[in-house]
Amino acid sequence: MRRLFQYLFSVFYILTACVWGETNPTPDPLPSWNAGPTKTAILRFVQNATDHNSKDYIPPDERIAAFDQDGTLWVEQPAYTQWYFTVDRLKALAPTQPSWWNQRIATLAKSSPDDFSKLSREDIEVVISKTHSGMSVEAFHQFVQEWLNKALHPRFKRPYTQLIYQPMLEVMQFLRNNGFKTYIVSGGGQEFVRSYASTVYGVPPEHIIGTADKVKYDYNHGQPILMKLPQLLYFDDKEGKPEGINLIIGRRPVITFGNSDGDRQMLEWTQGGKGASLELLVHHDDAQREYAYGPNSKIGTFSDALMTEAKKNDWIVISMKDDWNVIFPWQKKDANTQR
Amino acid sequence: MRRLFQYLFSVFYILTACVWGETNPTPDPLPSWNAGPTKTAILRFVQNATDHNSKDYIPPDERIAAFDQDGTLWVEQPAYTQWYFTVDRLKALAPTQPSWWNQRIATLAKSSPDDFSKLSREDIEVVISKTHSGMSVEAFHQFVQEWLNKALHPRFKRPYTQLIYQPMLEVMQFLRNNGFKTYIVSGGGQEFVRSYASTVYGVPPEHIIGTADKVKYDYNHGQPILMKLPQLLYFDDKEGKPEGINLIIGRRPVITFGNSDGDRQMLEWTQGGKGASLELLVHHDDAQREYAYGPNSKIGTFSDALMTEAKKNDWIVISMKDDWNVIFPWQKKDANTQR
Repeated sequence: MRRLFQYLFSVFYILTACVWGETNPTPDPLPSWNAGPTKTAILRFVQNATDHNSKDYIPPDERIAAFDQDGTLWVEQPAYTQWYFTVDRLKALAPTQPSWWNQRIATLAKSSPDDFSKLSREDIEVVISKTHSGMSVEAFHQFVQEWLNKALHPRFKRPYTQLIYQPMLEVMQFLRNNGFKTYIVSGGGQEFVRSYASTVYGVPPEHIIGTADKVKYDYNHGQPILMKLPQLLYFDDKEGKPEGINLIIGRRPVITFGNSDGDRQMLEWTQGGKGASLELLVHHDDAQREYAYGPNSKIGTFSDALMTEAKKNDWIVISMKDDWNVIFPWQKKDANTQR
Repeated sequence: MRRLFQYLFSVFYILTACVWGETNPTPDPLPSWNAGPTKTAILRFVQNATDHNSKDYIPPDERIAAFDQDGTLWVEQPAYTQWYFTVDRLKALAPTQPSWWNQRIATLAKSSPDDFSKLSREDIEVVISKTHSGMSVEAFHQFVQEWLNKALHPRFKRPYTQLIYQPMLEVMQFLRNNGFKTYIVSGGGQEFVRSYASTVYGVPPEHIIGTADKVKYDYNHGQPILMKLPQLLYFDDKEGKPEGINLIIGRRPVITFGNSDGDRQMLEWTQGGKGASLELLVHHDDAQREYAYGPNSKIGTFSDALMTEAKKNDWIVISMKDDWNVIFPWQKKDANTQR
């Protein structure tokens, strides 16, 4: 029944677009998305959400959109970008931090970022907290920006901030144009993401939810500063995602994009709201243009159980291969010839 | 020099208002504020912040306003509203919670809310965590709303939600009308304040920063819920205020209102930003219409040290007696006859 409606809507949308196009061409808000049920579902959801006469109308205040970051907004293979940052920082800190330097950390600093998958969560927490603290929040932002300016992805040989998904940028902008607030809800560090999210995604610091360290209010030459402490405040992954959403927003999202088992609870939480909602998962099935990975991947796991739950709950699985005609912004052709 | 500018601006503003008033009466955005340097400073700050040609122009994204709640937006004497709620809840829980009921808590449940000031911070944390947990966030909101519907203030014999300051409601609306986001930054519970802030102050849940308990993502008959736990995540008072502001907003406020020593760090943090800012403290000096209290008060302490710092830093001290011609919304006369 749902598929039938999607089909009818699709036909209606194309016919309307054709007729309308004769006199008043409306630009496609999602030019990097191929026509099909996924694109149709997104367009229809937003159309209903903004239509006062629709039973699925959503008041502007409640138009909250949530996006996982790693693997949903940008590349997460062969390792998380923040992990490359962490290892580079470990290496830089090696000579200056004898007090907490030990064999295990020394091995980590020498290792390849692919070794990330061999670490326990405790290891990751210890290493991240040590490499992400000891400076003010503002200094940390600057530090991350400087690193991003020079670091290159091992396969694409481009800055990580260019390895963002053009179709997702279009969805975020389309949602904002229709009165939605777009939040990033990442297992990555809140301050790490805040360092670049405004310029890279157009998402301001108050719309970034992430794993948060404690900070300490202090003074430096009489000027107040917030120092980053090597202590975790909360971990924003799996069940931590709806918990973090509650802390920062205090409302449920109505449309949520994820790509892994870490996003399952956030999608459940979105769907559990009272009104209309849409849940989507990016499936990495495009080894040629990006990566193909699933249940057995080291990171960004999309388990068989998640696929089963997606089907059971009518969550949309986005096929990178079939649904996206462009992956990265720098591959974009002219929008008019593309459609 | 500052006073001279305030005076000149005041004269200019009144003259402009008089001349303009002949042909096109502009309503005073702050009718419950008496003319004087405080009102002038607020009007001037907002005028400059929204004037592209002013050196004190503030881009819309950075127009963040922060308001303490207890004693700044509503009455905090003879005890915090949330403490009345807590004691009522302790009494109601008495028969059902033998496991954590003991002599100390039994004494508290029988005591007057004035005894709040005799408690240690640890006592308060234990009692609040026990009375604010064991239910979902949504159920807690409903619980608080029901309590607010029936509880009356001991002196004014009105619901606590009517004991809000009309002049502050006007400032919040005036700021929002000029593109500011108004945040509440309270030592009180984040979820407690969220229960009523939308309807009482027009402040949505994502703009409430407060003392936060941990929550746990769980399921109830297959439906996801967030359970409130009896564990503190962070305490949003004193240095906790700038820390909480960083967590939720990730930007500094540019205009901040407080009323006690608990707000000092938040005002310092506001003033420490790069551009123009305004810091204000409500001074309760009106025993007849509200309360008069200062350095030696049990709660809402406005210490001599705070007054000294206010003078040193050019923070504005709002005199409730002199600056406000109306305290509560239900005392408001017709806006046209009032000016």
